[in-house]
Amino acid sequence: MRKVVMGLSGGMDSATLLGLLLEQGFAIHCCSFVYGSKHGIYELEAAENIVAFYQERKKPVTHRVIDLRIPFLYMQSSLLKSGGPIPEGHYEAESMKQTVVPGRNLIFASVMAGIAESIGADTIYLGVHSGDHAIYPDCRPTFIMSLNETISFSSDGKVRVVAPLLKDDKGSILYKGYHGCTPKIPYHLTRTCYKDQPIACGKCGSCQERLEAFAKNGLKDPIPYED
Amino acid sequence: MRKVVMGLSGGMDSATLLGLLLEQGFAIHCCSFVYGSKHGIYELEAAENIVAFYQERKKPVTHRVIDLRIPFLYMQSSLLKSGGPIPEGHYEAESMKQTVVPGRNLIFASVMAGIAESIGADTIYLGVHSGDHAIYPDCRPTFIMSLNETISFSSDGKVRVVAPLLKDDKGSILYKGYHGCTPKIPYHLTRTCYKDQPIACGKCGSCQERLEAFAKNGLKDPIPYED
Repeated sequence: MRKVVMGLSGGMDSATLLGLLLEQGFAIHCCSFVYGSKHGIYELEAAENIVAFYQERKKPVTHRVIDLRIPFLYMQSSLLKSGGPIPEGHYEAESMKQTVVPGRNLIFASVMAGIAESIGADTIYLGVHSGDHAIYPDCRPTFIMSLNETISFSSDGKVRVVAPLLKDDKGSILYKGYHGCTPKIPYHLTRTCYKDQPIACGKCGSCQERLEAFAKNGLKDPIPYED
Repeated sequence: MRKVVMGLSGGMDSATLLGLLLEQGFAIHCCSFVYGSKHGIYELEAAENIVAFYQERKKPVTHRVIDLRIPFLYMQSSLLKSGGPIPEGHYEAESMKQTVVPGRNLIFASVMAGIAESIGADTIYLGVHSGDHAIYPDCRPTFIMSLNETISFSSDGKVRVVAPLLKDDKGSILYKGYHGCTPKIPYHLTRTCYKDQPIACGKCGSCQERLEAFAKNGLKDPIPYED
């Protein structure tokens, strides 16, 4: 069974990626990162619950939680516990740029590249998508293409990067995940909100983008919201 | 004063890079990484002594030691404490490939890119050189060029990567450092040996390459060796 590595944040995009990769028959080694984000403990709990969901159903999923809080102590971002408050409003608004974490996806992918090479996996899958392009430079197609090349050189051709949802928005990701996977992807276990609170706020850019995706698909979001 | 970030391993190449960058009038933020290598404690001590040497002479050098032992727990390499013995013999021998650490320079550069962006530095300097090309894919020109592009995309154009010693071998690095810097680079404080012992072994590929560099320049290596 072909082994691949993927980043599992605990959000709905990476949960969908996991479901779609399982449909393709891969053995999947999921990596989640603890990096000092305000919502980190809730994301991590979500990632663990999603993995448990699939493991209970005998799916070939393993999980590693990697603590990167030390290097991220030095990064400036309102997404981190060390930074200012999370802005409210639309996901693509200028104010959301405060939530960029310098180097984040590059660091995560670099660690996953080293792990992939060490365990004999040839591909890293990332769940980045088009909704992230406006604000986050490390989610854009130019970055992903260049990252793939860099990781290929770094590993002497042994590891590549694939981001199959790169051109999808959250609405079409939900469509693919909702209609394309057995068992159904456990969206009730996922975490999207950026705020440091157990119940999703429904107001931050991240919550708004999620709520829009469910509305577009004529579905009700199964998680509870604050209001 | 222009601020730049560089990787300082404690070896003679990065010590030379630091000396050459100081000649250019930069304020230099050095990053050293603890990652579970067998010789890590000796490298780190060397890096700290090199920084202290310049700080005592009022040079604009700051230093950050970043603990990455957790992510490197998952990497396979004989250079790490978790791996097999360090091979003896020539630096470019096939056996030296056991000392490749998957993802190492990519992870180090990614963390430095995030730090550079966070502190407002526009360049990361790396001390990689041509002696590393045969064995280490993450030291080759193709990798460095690609890494520069990836970090530029990741940071939205704010950070670039420069490796000014990329085409030099250890002999020409020593020549540049020995003749081009005031004060003279403190080679007596540097650490090159890969082995887990305080005194350099003189036999591992890394020691041999260093000894050849001093011999080529008609100089005596100021550090003690085992035999």
